[in-house]
Amino acid sequence: MTHTLSRRPLRRFWGWGHADATLSAQELSTLGLMLSQLDVGGALRPEPQLHEFTLAPSRVQPPAALAHLFSATPLDRLNHSAGKSFADCARMWLRQPPPAPDWVVYPDNEQDVVDVLDWAVRHNVAVIPYGGGSSVCGGVEVAVGGGYTAAISLDMERMHRVLEVDPVSRAARVQAGALGPELAAQLKTHGLALRHFPQSYEFSTLGGWIVTRAGGHYAMQYTHIDDFVECTRLVTPQGVMQTRRLPGSGAGPAPDRLVLGSEGSLGVLTEAWVRLQVPPVFRASASVKFDDYGAAAQCLRALSQSGLNPSNCRLLDAMETVVSGVGDGSCAVLVLGFESDDHPLHAWMARALALVDSYGGRYDAAAVARSQEGPGSQEHRIGTAGAWRDAFLRMPYWRDPMVGQGAIMDTVETAITWERFADFYRDVRAELAAVIERTTGMEAMVSCRITHVYPDGVAPYFTFACGTRDGSVASALAAWRDIKQAANAVLVAHGGTITHHHAVGRDHRSGYDREVDPLFRAMLASAKHTVDPQAVMNPGVLVDPVGRPLGLTGVLGSA
Amino acid sequence: MTHTLSRRPLRRFWGWGHADATLSAQELSTLGLMLSQLDVGGALRPEPQLHEFTLAPSRVQPPAALAHLFSATPLDRLNHSAGKSFADCARMWLRQPPPAPDWVVYPDNEQDVVDVLDWAVRHNVAVIPYGGGSSVCGGVEVAVGGGYTAAISLDMERMHRVLEVDPVSRAARVQAGALGPELAAQLKTHGLALRHFPQSYEFSTLGGWIVTRAGGHYAMQYTHIDDFVECTRLVTPQGVMQTRRLPGSGAGPAPDRLVLGSEGSLGVLTEAWVRLQVPPVFRASASVKFDDYGAAAQCLRALSQSGLNPSNCRLLDAMETVVSGVGDGSCAVLVLGFESDDHPLHAWMARALALVDSYGGRYDAAAVARSQEGPGSQEHRIGTAGAWRDAFLRMPYWRDPMVGQGAIMDTVETAITWERFADFYRDVRAELAAVIERTTGMEAMVSCRITHVYPDGVAPYFTFACGTRDGSVASALAAWRDIKQAANAVLVAHGGTITHHHAVGRDHRSGYDREVDPLFRAMLASAKHTVDPQAVMNPGVLVDPVGRPLGLTGVLGSA
Repeated sequence: MTHTLSRRPLRRFWGWGHADATLSAQELSTLGLMLSQLDVGGALRPEPQLHEFTLAPSRVQPPAALAHLFSATPLDRLNHSAGKSFADCARMWLRQPPPAPDWVVYPDNEQDVVDVLDWAVRHNVAVIPYGGGSSVCGGVEVAVGGGYTAAISLDMERMHRVLEVDPVSRAARVQAGALGPELAAQLKTHGLALRHFPQSYEFSTLGGWIVTRAGGHYAMQYTHIDDFVECTRLVTPQGVMQTRRLPGSGAGPAPDRLVLGSEGSLGVLTEAWVRLQVPPVFRASASVKFDDYGAAAQCLRALSQSGLNPSNCRLLDAMETVVSGVGDGSCAVLVLGFESDDHPLHAWMARALALVDSYGGRYDAAAVARSQEGPGSQEHRIGTAGAWRDAFLRMPYWRDPMVGQGAIMDTVETAITWERFADFYRDVRAELAAVIERTTGMEAMVSCRITHVYPDGVAPYFTFACGTRDGSVASALAAWRDIKQAANAVLVAHGGTITHHHAVGRDHRSGYDREVDPLFRAMLASAKHTVDPQAVMNPGVLVDPVGRPLGLTGVLGSA
Repeated sequence: MTHTLSRRPLRRFWGWGHADATLSAQELSTLGLMLSQLDVGGALRPEPQLHEFTLAPSRVQPPAALAHLFSATPLDRLNHSAGKSFADCARMWLRQPPPAPDWVVYPDNEQDVVDVLDWAVRHNVAVIPYGGGSSVCGGVEVAVGGGYTAAISLDMERMHRVLEVDPVSRAARVQAGALGPELAAQLKTHGLALRHFPQSYEFSTLGGWIVTRAGGHYAMQYTHIDDFVECTRLVTPQGVMQTRRLPGSGAGPAPDRLVLGSEGSLGVLTEAWVRLQVPPVFRASASVKFDDYGAAAQCLRALSQSGLNPSNCRLLDAMETVVSGVGDGSCAVLVLGFESDDHPLHAWMARALALVDSYGGRYDAAAVARSQEGPGSQEHRIGTAGAWRDAFLRMPYWRDPMVGQGAIMDTVETAITWERFADFYRDVRAELAAVIERTTGMEAMVSCRITHVYPDGVAPYFTFACGTRDGSVASALAAWRDIKQAANAVLVAHGGTITHHHAVGRDHRSGYDREVDPLFRAMLASAKHTVDPQAVMNPGVLVDPVGRPLGLTGVLGSA
């Protein structure tokens, strides 16, 4: 296969996972049921093929000294033309992808990154940093407009090494391009782990997690990658910015906090020191059923304010239990778990279950007792918690054929303080359903799971799905554009954030601009202008560069 | 008393606490012992009196519409001319205070703040925001230079109200000028508390804590005020910037994180929503002795990496036990505590003591058992933990007569990762002692306590004291300038941060500039320029404003 300079197993350019990923017979059967529930049917449509896509010629010549890092093969360019949002996949099914980058560049080391940025600045070339490409908000797409000569996608895959491990402080210096499993494998030899597991884990990188403030494994305390970051190293067009390895500091505004969430707009993250864990040997988990969702939410609040800090504390509403395949839609399910490498968790779980009892939750006490693991146990992945976790990781795979059949399936996620949650949960679902029905003429399925909790609030994650009248992917994409813009407005209008952990990218810009004070956005644009005066870094995400008003770009901007 | 527009009980302009604060007979006796140990003697010198100070005339007329908020009485101006560092107090004992602000302004509300900033911008007047005035790093001092027409101190004391309480999310909207006890009293009626207790608690404000990233009560998790901040409201010269009340978000770089640590350089914090606690009803504490400091530090590391998250986990080295009056200098003491409003802490303490046992710590098991408190108990302040806490709060009071007698007594605090700590602890103490002895010709007393711990590191807090050859305050101040500059360099050279929770101000600028990447400082200066283009906000702290190169100002700059 000479269609790519990538050294990784071939990815599916038009959807999720490896090129040869398939659904099991059972998954196919359930898929059929889901499609029929959405009134979307017919034989599965043929998957997109590379030869069906024609790309515009590359508009610039790579510098001779770096030419070996540059690829313009159709597969590389197509693979880097979009992330993995519903709209990204729909455009692939339509054989109408967004503009491909002129080149995909694979730096071997930091000097390559420096050299590529220097070249890009000299030639007015936009640079889109690319980690695993799992963005679901238009974070890795080429912005149209702005007067750039060309655009390159800077794929960090070759910079995937753990460079140093500090077992005393439990930290490691890691190159930004390491995918989740690559990072885990290298740390495992040291008996350590990051334990940051976003849904995209297999196909997203440490650098991507950091610049998008990804959400991970822990329901509390370490909800985002943010708190695992000890320091960062960022190559900007004006030079390298290195922060200091520190457990904590009060020296002015925290420099790392400007890098976290910068989404490639300030420069290219090349490495970071991250805080690690010793993998847990003690575990306890419970699956709790609630007939009353209001009581379940109250229980969740009590748990979040208890100081017990469960590592898992996820609440699936009745509809979500169906989507996740862990329930029949008759009740809400709370997935509760504790983990530790230091101590047994009986006291923690006992107190959590006492709270659960007081809010009317039901659970199998014997199963909870069996879930208590200690040294020497194998990690169990049994019961509702295990089923939920497996379904969680398989979910993106499901979406591909659904998109191909003309179904709309997407998620929006946010955060809101506790005192607003009940109204928010009711109103956001109702308004999402209303806009979906108005746009598609079809009944919407809207479900919600709580992914992370805080003493003062909660992060709800809504999934919606529906068909369209004519069942075409084109209709679905057109409707999705309206739904997405409405969703951006709804979340922010009801007091939420435009994103709890998916990032802003290009697709959430309209909500971000509503949510975040213009003075802060102006300060961010000034900071960007200081390190990227020619505005070559990922134009279109977060804020418009000074002097280059781009406005809304990406799939929503081109609508 | 008409010498002040302040409505608060009169403060001691030349030192710590209320104007009428005194030391007890026992404290006076111990003070005598300490002075003689430092070879500093003689009868106590007369305290500074207001009439001994002559201030330059105010250089600007207040605007008529706001004149009722402006005070130029000597006491107000003198009280606002400096913070409470060793150098600040020494200059008062010398009757040579830093330049006083031309006016002290007491806004009643946010509109007053807006109007004052508008006036300051129009008249090229520097604005120094002032909370409780407890800065120990030159944060509230008038910068000399920069070509300002005049300088005002903006005292937030009248904006001290809790405006809203949300008992569901456990949060409150509070005006920035509330002192610790004012905030606590207002929250208590709602059964809630912030539980952020810096040493300056009585004389520092919520706004001051936020803009300096103050360190508080909790040894872990909530080490800084940062994590208690839900959102902020900042009046800048370009308008009001309001962030959104959210439990968490991933929408770009976190806006509040730019406000946190901004030290008045971007604008005036007028209010914030902060996360609250229900006061604990369960408590458990232990005082643990270690003969071997290395083993004590290892134990501290084990505790910090255990996931037990003790609320107190402070390690005093042998010398520090003497300074704090909780030991005889024969061994190190670990003050360990847990607190909860939700659950008994037996399991937590039992596991912590098992760790303590494994590192050779000694404790009174019966005393630990007695320390276990539940609902209905009164809060105990007994044993070593209680003695340490009382000494901690009284420490600033002690310093005043010591400074007057010509002793040098100061602290430097920092943070460092675990794998460097042993060398750091040895080297910083040695280098501090060496520079003190070189500058003063006297033997130095250097002690260390660990104030906060993290899974990946530790926050050491060094106290040093010595006399000078001639016993004069002038010699002490001259020596202190050299010691302070050396300390700034030493902390950063050995990998630490210039400040873990005292802020940068003017006195830590030389260390800050070494520690923090020039690209970040340039971005911060750009951000400042965006909201404060005339650079009137607290010139001299953190970074030089664009177009107004001030360099090192304050007590070190004028040396």
